[in-house]
Amino acid sequence: MTTTLTYLEIMEMEQRKRAQLINSISGFRSTVLIGTIDVAGQTNVAIFSSIVHIGSNPPLLSFIMRPDSVERHTLTNIMDTGYYTINHIHNNIYEQAHQTSARYPKSVSEFDATGLTPEYKNEFVAPFVKESHIQIGMEFKERVTIEINQTSMVIGEIKAVYFPANCLEPDGFINLEKAGTITSAGLDSYHATQLLQRLEYAKP
Amino acid sequence: MTTTLTYLEIMEMEQRKRAQLINSISGFRSTVLIGTIDVAGQTNVAIFSSIVHIGSNPPLLSFIMRPDSVERHTLTNIMDTGYYTINHIHNNIYEQAHQTSARYPKSVSEFDATGLTPEYKNEFVAPFVKESHIQIGMEFKERVTIEINQTSMVIGEIKAVYFPANCLEPDGFINLEKAGTITSAGLDSYHATQLLQRLEYAKP
Repeated sequence: MTTTLTYLEIMEMEQRKRAQLINSISGFRSTVLIGTIDVAGQTNVAIFSSIVHIGSNPPLLSFIMRPDSVERHTLTNIMDTGYYTINHIHNNIYEQAHQTSARYPKSVSEFDATGLTPEYKNEFVAPFVKESHIQIGMEFKERVTIEINQTSMVIGEIKAVYFPANCLEPDGFINLEKAGTITSAGLDSYHATQLLQRLEYAKP
Repeated sequence: MTTTLTYLEIMEMEQRKRAQLINSISGFRSTVLIGTIDVAGQTNVAIFSSIVHIGSNPPLLSFIMRPDSVERHTLTNIMDTGYYTINHIHNNIYEQAHQTSARYPKSVSEFDATGLTPEYKNEFVAPFVKESHIQIGMEFKERVTIEINQTSMVIGEIKAVYFPANCLEPDGFINLEKAGTITSAGLDSYHATQLLQRLEYAKP
């Protein structure tokens, strides 16, 4: 049996219920921890579920920030320092990763609050998450404002990637399952994956 | 053992290998079929792996289109008619879904070429994919150009959603696993999911 919900029925839903529905109906998500630091050296780490590939040459990734009606430490730190890190989440840290979404005051580092460990390497200014198996150093490139709801899209360039050597396949593909990378659905549902198949390049 | 690749090493990679690397390092993807129709009634269906939630009030989703250097039937049809559909992919149709990425001429509908079935309902102009368990009717709202590589982000508003009645949980969450929705990694890797846990709303 199929349920149908129209635009009007969606708009009439109670707010939290609508948020659960629309956040889940968009499909499985690329969910990561973004690490930043402010100009005074205070670290921040926060979970984001909107990473998208924008291009490979140069290598660009984007993520979405909700409007600035509340304080957004991640965005402020990126705009102030120009750098951030993207860190994959695996089976052993997804609960800590989720906990970074709590509204801690600016004076509290989510690293301390959740027991995740900041890691600095190769003189990169922003902290990586030491527990992550796949880590990406990013340089801020562009911020785009979406007019219809004042959401920001933040685009950065990959400056360095770190991953377990045995995850790199001969054709350049990173085997995310071997690294234990998980995915999420909606606002709070975490999922492991199981390979169905890699397919050949499609031709007519 | 950890492998490190710097920006320069990434830029020096052979093009297809770099594309595999950067497309996979972004994490698991929300991968769907987008259905459109042109003004003459010719249908089109194509796989996209960049669906992102932009907002719930109003309900908005985005996807990314690569630059217009080659013919992009999906984007042309959306701009001409104002409507499109987003259709989830499950275990039994992911091979057909992948095949829609082949470069068919404009005169060929990928529905015919891949054996997927166009479905029309409630006078919505764009075709749904009948085989999909979760279908979303979308109205075009905004196109944003990313300056750094001339990629387009297309934003639309949800006009209607269709899903199996037993997938809706009491809090509004759509259980994607129950619907069989799959995820993908990189350009060609398809994955089923296995629930780890739904977590409580995080508080400090």
